[in-house]
Amino acid sequence: MSSHAIRHVRVTPIAFRDPPLLNAAGIHEPWALRSIIEIETDSGLVGINESYGDLPMLESLARAAPALAGLSPWALNDMETRVAALVTPPAQTASEFLGQQVSLAPGTHVSKTMAKVISAFEVAMLDLQGQMAGAPVVDLLGGAARASVPFSAYLFFKYAEHIDKPYAPDPWGEALTPEQLVAQARRMIGEYGFQSIKLKAGALPPAQEAAALLALAQAFPGAPLRIDPNGNWSVATSLAIVEQLRGVLEYYEDPAPGLDGMAAVARACEVPLATNMVVTDLAEFRRNAEMGCPVKIVLSDHHYWGGLRATQRLSLMCQTFGLGLSMHSNSHLGVSLTAMTHLAASVPHLSYACDTHYPWQDDEVIAGGRLRFERGSLRVPTTPGLGVTLDRDALARLHDNYLHCGIRHRDDLAQMRKYDPTFTGQQPRF
Amino acid sequence: MSSHAIRHVRVTPIAFRDPPLLNAAGIHEPWALRSIIEIETDSGLVGINESYGDLPMLESLARAAPALAGLSPWALNDMETRVAALVTPPAQTASEFLGQQVSLAPGTHVSKTMAKVISAFEVAMLDLQGQMAGAPVVDLLGGAARASVPFSAYLFFKYAEHIDKPYAPDPWGEALTPEQLVAQARRMIGEYGFQSIKLKAGALPPAQEAAALLALAQAFPGAPLRIDPNGNWSVATSLAIVEQLRGVLEYYEDPAPGLDGMAAVARACEVPLATNMVVTDLAEFRRNAEMGCPVKIVLSDHHYWGGLRATQRLSLMCQTFGLGLSMHSNSHLGVSLTAMTHLAASVPHLSYACDTHYPWQDDEVIAGGRLRFERGSLRVPTTPGLGVTLDRDALARLHDNYLHCGIRHRDDLAQMRKYDPTFTGQQPRF
Repeated sequence: MSSHAIRHVRVTPIAFRDPPLLNAAGIHEPWALRSIIEIETDSGLVGINESYGDLPMLESLARAAPALAGLSPWALNDMETRVAALVTPPAQTASEFLGQQVSLAPGTHVSKTMAKVISAFEVAMLDLQGQMAGAPVVDLLGGAARASVPFSAYLFFKYAEHIDKPYAPDPWGEALTPEQLVAQARRMIGEYGFQSIKLKAGALPPAQEAAALLALAQAFPGAPLRIDPNGNWSVATSLAIVEQLRGVLEYYEDPAPGLDGMAAVARACEVPLATNMVVTDLAEFRRNAEMGCPVKIVLSDHHYWGGLRATQRLSLMCQTFGLGLSMHSNSHLGVSLTAMTHLAASVPHLSYACDTHYPWQDDEVIAGGRLRFERGSLRVPTTPGLGVTLDRDALARLHDNYLHCGIRHRDDLAQMRKYDPTFTGQQPRF
Repeated sequence: MSSHAIRHVRVTPIAFRDPPLLNAAGIHEPWALRSIIEIETDSGLVGINESYGDLPMLESLARAAPALAGLSPWALNDMETRVAALVTPPAQTASEFLGQQVSLAPGTHVSKTMAKVISAFEVAMLDLQGQMAGAPVVDLLGGAARASVPFSAYLFFKYAEHIDKPYAPDPWGEALTPEQLVAQARRMIGEYGFQSIKLKAGALPPAQEAAALLALAQAFPGAPLRIDPNGNWSVATSLAIVEQLRGVLEYYEDPAPGLDGMAAVARACEVPLATNMVVTDLAEFRRNAEMGCPVKIVLSDHHYWGGLRATQRLSLMCQTFGLGLSMHSNSHLGVSLTAMTHLAASVPHLSYACDTHYPWQDDEVIAGGRLRFERGSLRVPTTPGLGVTLDRDALARLHDNYLHCGIRHRDDLAQMRKYDPTFTGQQPRF
């Protein structure tokens, strides 16, 4: 066993093209940041993972990496204790950040630092464990409850091109009208086979977004539909829109800001509410439970919930309190998607198709290139560990992107101000 | 991997001597029942476990065993699904059983059948996984958060001898007075080195039991003390006794019956309440949480909580709701104790020394004989799997006990009626 002791941790920041996707906070910048984590043992095994790539995260990973020296890849509890000792959590709570721009991406909350670093290391250690045990990660998580994991078509309103034209326009074109959005959906569903549809909203006037969703309902009869304004609607707007969408929504994701806002919507709305904004950690889970569970579906994300095992535990908590469970996503590549797939396959209680931004990326860091969906689902790897390895040329190229892209923190608000200097980002906007 | 497919499940009921220990339900019978589970793979590996041995449990295990045929030992989720399909849960809920004699031993609740069978198989499959991966079970659970697991001295009021004299009297002698109980504690702590003390109560008049606990407090200054009347005291008695024990108790275990009774005690009592009677499954966990957590410490037991991984998940739920966690025990041998030790070592949140009946048994089924405690703690095995194997001669002998002991269901009430035909078992008695 000692020959498998961890001797080195390497973190490589990367950047890849991201389209001009609109959301409540503003608009995606031309480059999305991630980090690739490699954990190497004395015996020469390498476990990999993918996580956030903003500067504070990179600094936290660097601060925590010495925690792993000499550890067995099995020693996840030890790793957590050591990371906790090196990464001091800030005094703020996640809820203090709600309503701010970062609330779009719970993974960027400073309060999540410890859970994010633990997750970043845990998945790479599980990859090592799987290689050592000759078993896929899903087996280390209790085995596959399903052979493949369904994802949803994640639609965005978008511009045709980034304002600063950093590279050639993406092939998706503009999507601002219902017709353009339906075309986007047809293209994405045609390529990936998704069976359900999520619309990122909170960007355009709500009536326009509702019209787009109704057009989707007409174009894809029977497909489960969701809309996610990222808390950018008032309670009154949330209730007015859900009335227009009567009979159409599978669930209603974060219409109004804050748990209290969500609770106010829940009191007058039959559609179950989902969230990746107001139940993003255990304290918030408890508060929701103590309020009688106004939020009925938790959109988990192992990147900030503390890892694959922590998300499995969240799953049991959801079962206990009668909550549904699905998965949230940020812009990411194939290592994250593969880890999500192992996790989602191992969670019997997964109640909905998972979110993924994957179709919006056109690059990849794993050997063999882009992962292939079948009817909107990914098959769970059956080879030892995560079952994916790094394409080192791609990694070097994506790292080079990082070095030259000039972005070190995600800032959709500042980016939107380039298009519209009067844009305040104040929420709820509508 | 296919060479490790499960091909056979063997369940061997066993019986071993159990002293005449008094409790709220009556008195222990001269023989305690358990089952030894062996799961064998095509490749000849054998994973073992120990569970309940009453006839309904044996029947459930027999009904569920075909579920395992051909499964990979990694396929715990599959196993659970298959077991659920074969073992139909009864309509009754655990709480319907509260106040009845079986409430002493939550593992005997019919409503727990599925969780019990899943646990019985899960531990043996984890033993197989560990052998396949070359890792101790604790590593499959995230690695050791502690190198050894503390247990407490579990004291009982008792008679010197069983009424029907089935075998020579045990060496512990009678314990009905405070002096006799202190002597019992000195002997047990002398042999095992326990650092904390639990007194099983609810058997003698409460004032007599309180006097015994105060004598223990005087004899073992600084040792954490607990008392467990198994819900056999009224709320008024519970409050009167805790007043007498002011400043002495670490926690107060199941003084009054039912969650409502416990909540009534909690409202007027500063000592935290612990339970293995009113929070014994997820539905009861939720009810306690929804009531604002009158019960502050869950005494878990992997045998009826659904296994080692399920208990780890319970641990996170306890953390989330600010609850403490420790472990409950029934009469058992070394396989159960070893599984508890792996589990307890893997749970960072374990807040108290665990219960164990182990000192009351004088027999063993594992190779190498009785497990040895150091300062009241057990070291976590570091060899692959559970790290213990069966002594086949001992297994045959203990199975022979089972065949001849005549007991097929635990019935402390009927046993007590042999001593006192007027004993009704009605609860709360005091």
